[in-house]
Amino acid sequence: MAGPNGADYPDRFWEETRMKIGFVGLGNMGLPMAANLLAAGHTLTVWNRTEAKAAPLKAKGAKVAATPAEAARGAEAVFSMLADDAAVGSAVFGKEGIQAGMSPGALHVSSSTISVALSEKLAEAHASAGQRYVAAPVFGRPAAAESKQLWVVAAGPKQDVERCRPLLEALGRGLTVLGENAPAANVVKLSGNFLIASMMEALAESFALTRKSGIEPKAFLDVFQSVFARSPIFETYAQLIAEEKYSPAGFKLKLGLKDMELVLGAARGAEVPMPLASLVKDQFLGGVAQGHGDLDWSALGALVAERAGLKRGT
Amino acid sequence: MAGPNGADYPDRFWEETRMKIGFVGLGNMGLPMAANLLAAGHTLTVWNRTEAKAAPLKAKGAKVAATPAEAARGAEAVFSMLADDAAVGSAVFGKEGIQAGMSPGALHVSSSTISVALSEKLAEAHASAGQRYVAAPVFGRPAAAESKQLWVVAAGPKQDVERCRPLLEALGRGLTVLGENAPAANVVKLSGNFLIASMMEALAESFALTRKSGIEPKAFLDVFQSVFARSPIFETYAQLIAEEKYSPAGFKLKLGLKDMELVLGAARGAEVPMPLASLVKDQFLGGVAQGHGDLDWSALGALVAERAGLKRGT
Amino acid sequence: MAGPNGADYPDRFWEETRMKIGFVGLGNMGLPMAANLLAAGHTLTVWNRTEAKAAPLKAKGAKVAATPAEAARGAEAVFSMLADDAAVGSAVFGKEGIQAGMSPGALHVSSSTISVALSEKLAEAHASAGQRYVAAPVFGRPAAAESKQLWVVAAGPKQDVERCRPLLEALGRGLTVLGENAPAANVVKLSGNFLIASMMEALAESFALTRKSGIEPKAFLDVFQSVFARSPIFETYAQLIAEEKYSPAGFKLKLGLKDMELVLGAARGAEVPMPLASLVKDQFLGGVAQGHGDLDWSALGALVAERAGLKRGT
Amino acid sequence: MAGPNGADYPDRFWEETRMKIGFVGLGNMGLPMAANLLAAGHTLTVWNRTEAKAAPLKAKGAKVAATPAEAARGAEAVFSMLADDAAVGSAVFGKEGIQAGMSPGALHVSSSTISVALSEKLAEAHASAGQRYVAAPVFGRPAAAESKQLWVVAAGPKQDVERCRPLLEALGRGLTVLGENAPAANVVKLSGNFLIASMMEALAESFALTRKSGIEPKAFLDVFQSVFARSPIFETYAQLIAEEKYSPAGFKLKLGLKDMELVLGAARGAEVPMPLASLVKDQFLGGVAQGHGDLDWSALGALVAERAGLKRGT
Repeated sequence: MAGPNGADYPDRFWEETRMKIGFVGLGNMGLPMAANLLAAGHTLTVWNRTEAKAAPLKAKGAKVAATPAEAARGAEAVFSMLADDAAVGSAVFGKEGIQAGMSPGALHVSSSTISVALSEKLAEAHASAGQRYVAAPVFGRPAAAESKQLWVVAAGPKQDVERCRPLLEALGRGLTVLGENAPAANVVKLSGNFLIASMMEALAESFALTRKSGIEPKAFLDVFQSVFARSPIFETYAQLIAEEKYSPAGFKLKLGLKDMELVLGAARGAEVPMPLASLVKDQFLGGVAQGHGDLDWSALGALVAERAGLKRGT
Repeated sequence: MAGPNGADYPDRFWEETRMKIGFVGLGNMGLPMAANLLAAGHTLTVWNRTEAKAAPLKAKGAKVAATPAEAARGAEAVFSMLADDAAVGSAVFGKEGIQAGMSPGALHVSSSTISVALSEKLAEAHASAGQRYVAAPVFGRPAAAESKQLWVVAAGPKQDVERCRPLLEALGRGLTVLGENAPAANVVKLSGNFLIASMMEALAESFALTRKSGIEPKAFLDVFQSVFARSPIFETYAQLIAEEKYSPAGFKLKLGLKDMELVLGAARGAEVPMPLASLVKDQFLGGVAQGHGDLDWSALGALVAERAGLKRGT
Repeated sequence: MAGPNGADYPDRFWEETRMKIGFVGLGNMGLPMAANLLAAGHTLTVWNRTEAKAAPLKAKGAKVAATPAEAARGAEAVFSMLADDAAVGSAVFGKEGIQAGMSPGALHVSSSTISVALSEKLAEAHASAGQRYVAAPVFGRPAAAESKQLWVVAAGPKQDVERCRPLLEALGRGLTVLGENAPAANVVKLSGNFLIASMMEALAESFALTRKSGIEPKAFLDVFQSVFARSPIFETYAQLIAEEKYSPAGFKLKLGLKDMELVLGAARGAEVPMPLASLVKDQFLGGVAQGHGDLDWSALGALVAERAGLKRGT
Repeated sequence: MAGPNGADYPDRFWEETRMKIGFVGLGNMGLPMAANLLAAGHTLTVWNRTEAKAAPLKAKGAKVAATPAEAARGAEAVFSMLADDAAVGSAVFGKEGIQAGMSPGALHVSSSTISVALSEKLAEAHASAGQRYVAAPVFGRPAAAESKQLWVVAAGPKQDVERCRPLLEALGRGLTVLGENAPAANVVKLSGNFLIASMMEALAESFALTRKSGIEPKAFLDVFQSVFARSPIFETYAQLIAEEKYSPAGFKLKLGLKDMELVLGAARGAEVPMPLASLVKDQFLGGVAQGHGDLDWSALGALVAERAGLKRGT
């Protein structure tokens, strides 16, 4: 049998890495994820509130459980991929829930987008029951899940993350490990969705401004695609903020202020309220007022960090 | 002599396309732009407030003028690339300014990042003097200008844009034409800078949240690079907003609201003020309150447009 | 014995209106409130986490209970006045809590500033135990509580509010009844605190702007006192918004926009970020963009209501 | 002849205090203001773009000028009360404008709500022409102007303010002098309008929240009138911010944060976007994050001032 990179591995190796897995939640995301685990050679017992959704997996050899507890019973690792805090809470802590079914030492891999608070509660509950817990939410939409193009962000005790690493790698194109505190992965997943929502608000305001200024949406889209979407521009700024490298300035904060004022001037002329432009303008104005006008405009990063009570370099 | 694509062209062709150009403003951006025009075979007369900056171009054959008017005199096209409205205003309208030097029928190509109002004034002033005007600001930093990697956005009367197209193509890797109303190009340039500033605010808040949650900035940067920077994710949303295609939902607006609430919950726990997250949350909440919770979350585009008094599809 | 207004009443009257009351929570607010109930002739049994605080009431004849349940036992009405949701939750629902002590038909008067969600839960819990519940939070600081100058906002089933009306009137200078749904009183209390916080933000930005413009804080305070604090100006606008009477305009929304732009211009000049001014400016700009520029500027009320999905006159 | 308070004054006194005044701008505000100056015994020459508006004043003895310059000619003081910067600019600086008509040493009293920039320009222009300038905008609506209930805020060189003090006192119920720098009065006038707009936004959000929570607008209005409009509550907070007296706390900033979270929780439940509540919440959260949670919640004043680059006590 061919292993990664096409190399041949002895059967014995596969005996060891083929794991017994439970999978709870077969929605648009869960179903293709479970299918990829199955395709990677693992043994699956699945559960879904609506059992019919499990049919395609059953056809490929998965067992179908009547309760989350049953899916978890005897499994080395049990995944949960559900809609929200309420669904995860009841699937884990309910009567016949995941926790009740898990053996001591077994691992719960939580891939749902849930609150940090619930993730903390899961970490504690599993720890106090002698069970293991890793948070491993994923980036990507259903199509990406199907084509194994998800990006996984995982956190939890090192040995537990390593134990399930082959499983996580079977789900997508890559993995970032975010340390030993499981809820950190949930914070990062939420931050990612926040970045998308923020970009959409920025785009929404930009399209409103350009449309009211008589510019075809397709033309502005063309500029966005040519200038931003396929260029390292956002990445460059992310790096400056990550490294808190605000000097020397590539583009000064006080020029950023000037440009945001020009944006708001154009918005006034076209009668387009742009609350995000106002917010950013006020951030830059605060930076100038506090004497940081000659730093790079990415020093927004420092202003926001300071308001959060963070010290440089911590 | 080798033309584009390595093909040979008769000398006569180059006689015709080699133009007599004035270039006003040799700062970090102007200098490499002028150098690229020179390298493309055009004849340049340049002016800069500090004349010393012109030395490298003089060494390559450019003439150095004593005033903007002198740089413009006899030129088919004169570029201006200056710091702000004040600098452009005085270089164009001042005594011995560009306009005074331009012949009737000559073309002013304005590449500076200036206000829409000044661009409108330039359009009118040149028109009433029988002169031509194209706004052609550029995206990219000095390094991109040097390596001919700028992206140019141009607007103005069609024949004028076509006339200077070879010049604009000599400046960068591509060009988007935004119609016949010159100030439209300035709106688009400003909108682009607004998108960058918005992304920086989003990144600043995300890094503050993740840092205070104990996550290494490098780890979050790795996620940003892997998931966002080199993926079509923002492009996909830009397209949905450009096409106002908010249904069927890939990810429902009401789930976007839920996620922003989880973000703000995490921010509360870590004590990180995230004003942009609050803004986006309130936008989603308004969308849900108005009955749009089942649209795609990119319907932010519709909410913002509605507040701007725009109708669908206009 | 002297009744209200110093008039003499026969003893029999006082027999009937003197009630047996429990009072849970003797902090800065609770202590003077309980003292006023005692002074009005009622019989009190009080409980506080730190029993020492009860001493002044004990000296005036109150009984001191060992648990909230004991304070509630046998009382016709039991007040709670505690710090937050957690304190109220445990004092009511805990072992030896208020609910356990209350007789069927007895009334819980909740005066704490708590969440709407907890108030809803209290309403349900008491109803299902055959007990009565009125939410009656108060406006005023400790000094106002001592001098009987609080303002009470009460909501709950009509007969229950009427039953405790004499008690509520003994606490302050007046009372507004807000209908039969108890949590409505909590919404109003929270809205009141929001109005104060908003006014403080507006004042904070105004003082920052005027100070940086070289104006003595005392001089601006004098204007505030003379023009706003003792005039019906805010009341007038509250009335216009309550009645949705946005036309004819006393001062047009588009002039409001103009003035907010002048404010932001002054703020730019003085380098003072004013996020609330930006917010209000964007609201007015949205109003103008949507064609409401000729309405009174109080039509902010309509813009906010529309975004909340409210219809006019509902 | 009877002086103020009905006392008799010798004719000579009135010779000195009766002034020759020009008045430019007879709109809703200007007309009653001019009438009050006339009623106070001064000699008036008035100008208005639409001359018909001057009829009631003509009937009472005012002269009607054909141009602003004519109204200003020979006057000791000339008032302007016009709609906006553009109207003031052309009435003052235009051909046959106020400045052209004013004698050296004559005083321009500018009562319009104009930009700080224009007020600065007026101060310079009059100074360089040997003329005097006082900014004296007013608070109050037309009805207040008619009943002499305006409040005037004046700034300018001390002797000039004193010179026109009797005129300003004839316009309203009181006057605050804001120092010798004329534009300061315009900053204060604009700040006042900002306070009103902010209160309206706060009211708009509160009414939306309470309406959607099932509370009659009239009931919430009653609370507003009883608790806020006729009480010193806002004044108290204005004083704390003016004096930067944030400790000891009457109500802690961290409790303010808690209450704003409860407000936003209620707003979420009722589906009401409250952007101002979000803004204030984020301010409080920043305060807590920076270690100021135990200060009084009015320390919003300090947070805003710090972002403006102000030092304590300056």
